[in-house]
Amino acid sequence: MKKFEQTRARFHVPEGVRYFDGNSLGLMPKAVAPYVNDVVATQWANGLIRSWHEADWRLLPQTAGQKVARLIGANPAQVVACDSTSANLFKVLVSAVRLRPGRSTIVTDADAFPTDLYIVYQVARLFDLNVVAVPAAQIPSRLDAQVATVVLTHVDYRSAEIYDMGEYTRKAHDVGALIIWDLSHTAGGVPCDLEADDVDFAVGCGYKYLNGGPGAPAYLYVSAKHLDHCEQPLAGWFGHARPFDFTQHYAPAEGVARFLCGTNPVIGLSALSRALDEFNGVDMEEVRARSVDLTERFIEGVDSELAEYGFHLASPREAAKRGSHVSLRHLRGYGIMQELGLRGYIGDFRMPDYMRFGFAPLYNNEDDIAELIAEIKLIMQTRAWDKPEHKQRRDFT
Amino acid sequence: MKKFEQTRARFHVPEGVRYFDGNSLGLMPKAVAPYVNDVVATQWANGLIRSWHEADWRLLPQTAGQKVARLIGANPAQVVACDSTSANLFKVLVSAVRLRPGRSTIVTDADAFPTDLYIVYQVARLFDLNVVAVPAAQIPSRLDAQVATVVLTHVDYRSAEIYDMGEYTRKAHDVGALIIWDLSHTAGGVPCDLEADDVDFAVGCGYKYLNGGPGAPAYLYVSAKHLDHCEQPLAGWFGHARPFDFTQHYAPAEGVARFLCGTNPVIGLSALSRALDEFNGVDMEEVRARSVDLTERFIEGVDSELAEYGFHLASPREAAKRGSHVSLRHLRGYGIMQELGLRGYIGDFRMPDYMRFGFAPLYNNEDDIAELIAEIKLIMQTRAWDKPEHKQRRDFT
Repeated sequence: MKKFEQTRARFHVPEGVRYFDGNSLGLMPKAVAPYVNDVVATQWANGLIRSWHEADWRLLPQTAGQKVARLIGANPAQVVACDSTSANLFKVLVSAVRLRPGRSTIVTDADAFPTDLYIVYQVARLFDLNVVAVPAAQIPSRLDAQVATVVLTHVDYRSAEIYDMGEYTRKAHDVGALIIWDLSHTAGGVPCDLEADDVDFAVGCGYKYLNGGPGAPAYLYVSAKHLDHCEQPLAGWFGHARPFDFTQHYAPAEGVARFLCGTNPVIGLSALSRALDEFNGVDMEEVRARSVDLTERFIEGVDSELAEYGFHLASPREAAKRGSHVSLRHLRGYGIMQELGLRGYIGDFRMPDYMRFGFAPLYNNEDDIAELIAEIKLIMQTRAWDKPEHKQRRDFT
Repeated sequence: MKKFEQTRARFHVPEGVRYFDGNSLGLMPKAVAPYVNDVVATQWANGLIRSWHEADWRLLPQTAGQKVARLIGANPAQVVACDSTSANLFKVLVSAVRLRPGRSTIVTDADAFPTDLYIVYQVARLFDLNVVAVPAAQIPSRLDAQVATVVLTHVDYRSAEIYDMGEYTRKAHDVGALIIWDLSHTAGGVPCDLEADDVDFAVGCGYKYLNGGPGAPAYLYVSAKHLDHCEQPLAGWFGHARPFDFTQHYAPAEGVARFLCGTNPVIGLSALSRALDEFNGVDMEEVRARSVDLTERFIEGVDSELAEYGFHLASPREAAKRGSHVSLRHLRGYGIMQELGLRGYIGDFRMPDYMRFGFAPLYNNEDDIAELIAEIKLIMQTRAWDKPEHKQRRDFT
């Protein structure tokens, strides 16, 4: 697809690197480096405090949020970028629980990325609620009139399995519960439609397929129907209706701005906002088609070239149920990923034995995949995973 | 002082600007722009996910925290930089309240920067506690065995009055309460000694005298004696003892790292960390002497040159009780500050009539002050504050 060769050209691919970790930290869009430099060396250095107005720093959470909104089927007014995914989940989960007083339970996916589980347990503790953490497939069977809210990740961080947003949301609503979706592995890789599916809340991170840079601000979505009734606990001054009145008592801002907390990270938000412009001119259906094409090619390569080496496909074989990464399980997975890394093929490893390969629609291509398959085959043929330096597990990779 | 002419030379002062707002957003250290550019265009663009190890991104909250620690009299192991001041206050306040179960009250300064009050009320609501918000001077008289914790800002954001850290802390402890200090207008401008004064918790922001850039990450301090007992509610994966084990249940990290939440903002933390290096080679007693010299000079100038124009000194006249900014109150304060801004003299305005001038010890100098006094005099002589465009209040300035 010619369009995606054009988008690829807008990203910096380091010399000697084939990158399959855009689902963990996206490549840097070439435009971001000079843009960030301008924010620092001009907007900050020369504009100083005046840039809150003159460079529209004050609006960055909304500006970036609107750009995310288009990718997740949200009304632009319902999304802000701010804080971390964990902090944002805390904010929306407390809000959700308060919208369902008297109900005793939060239901969540036991296999969620753990930070979501940690936050769920913290909120449950604060409100004296029960947590039912079960595999996502069992969630519908655990829904009843005691459930205040469901917390579920749309695309599983290990398997890439997509959970049906419309169906889970409907089932939650059927018992009067609310639902919060974590879109960290969705936005920018897999389409969704929060408004059409009547989703209550969503959160997600900015540094994966959105390419916002390391530790980029996260985002959150709140349905228009709930906004006026939401009371979130990290009620800092940026969420106030009139922050510069410096009044003692909190009056929440109109709209999703009430979910802002303290002074927002201008440099990080600027990087994220500029990075999101790389999605201009492509729609999410095209992105999805490209993503499916890439993951299909990879799985076909595994089937045809690596069949004898004991890999187990840990992602759905059915494309419709698979997100934009593919996980293989292998007894030697850790050593294989380490050896791939030394050779410039960067994916990542998730405990206990998941080899995870992300295929970012905007920049991965057919050559990446052909070379990846060939390199894995070479490593297996030469048992190059079996080196002493691959015994020691290293995090953050 | 020659030393401070040297530190001044390390900051970018824009052409035509005299800057008195370092207590709101510090000037950019010249070294920060190329450093941030390297983080983006090399560490991120080329190092990618590997930089979590190879560029020590994973340690940035601690690295920056240690540099802050020296400025506030804290053990380096007790401070991390992360999140916003508001979020950090939420974390330490919930922790403090949990350390004093059965007590009913949080006592705080009614004149605190409002975001702190908003967070205090949110925590009180979650734990069903009372809030006693009174002027700081009345806090000691409101302490009793029902008080769980005191929340107090060390240097008042409007008046610059310094509250005696040792005395308030001792009085809180005398009734068995804990104390949380907000150091946003302290760190980098006024010395303090958290360890000597046996402070329980502290928070503060990174973008004022620490010069970390717009929306820079904040920091928090937790006394070693409390750390192992603290349970903070924003328990994201970066606060986990072994985040890459991806376990379902939360086990807090050893030490102050348990106060981290989600993935930390690498670009912002890098800017802050590099900016803090500008304090290398100066100790806080020298910083304090310089700060006092600057604020004294300004007050003397107001007394001698502006006596006839109706300014009221809203900061303590006694240097020992005054932080590193000076506030004047004036009926025409808003217009005067606007007109000063148009002429390149940047301070800020705080409701209802506070003209606030920050004197950052590392870069403001005698010439700044002489010219500021002369310019205010000229504006008063010519009634230049009385322009139509100064009628409309604009925030974020």
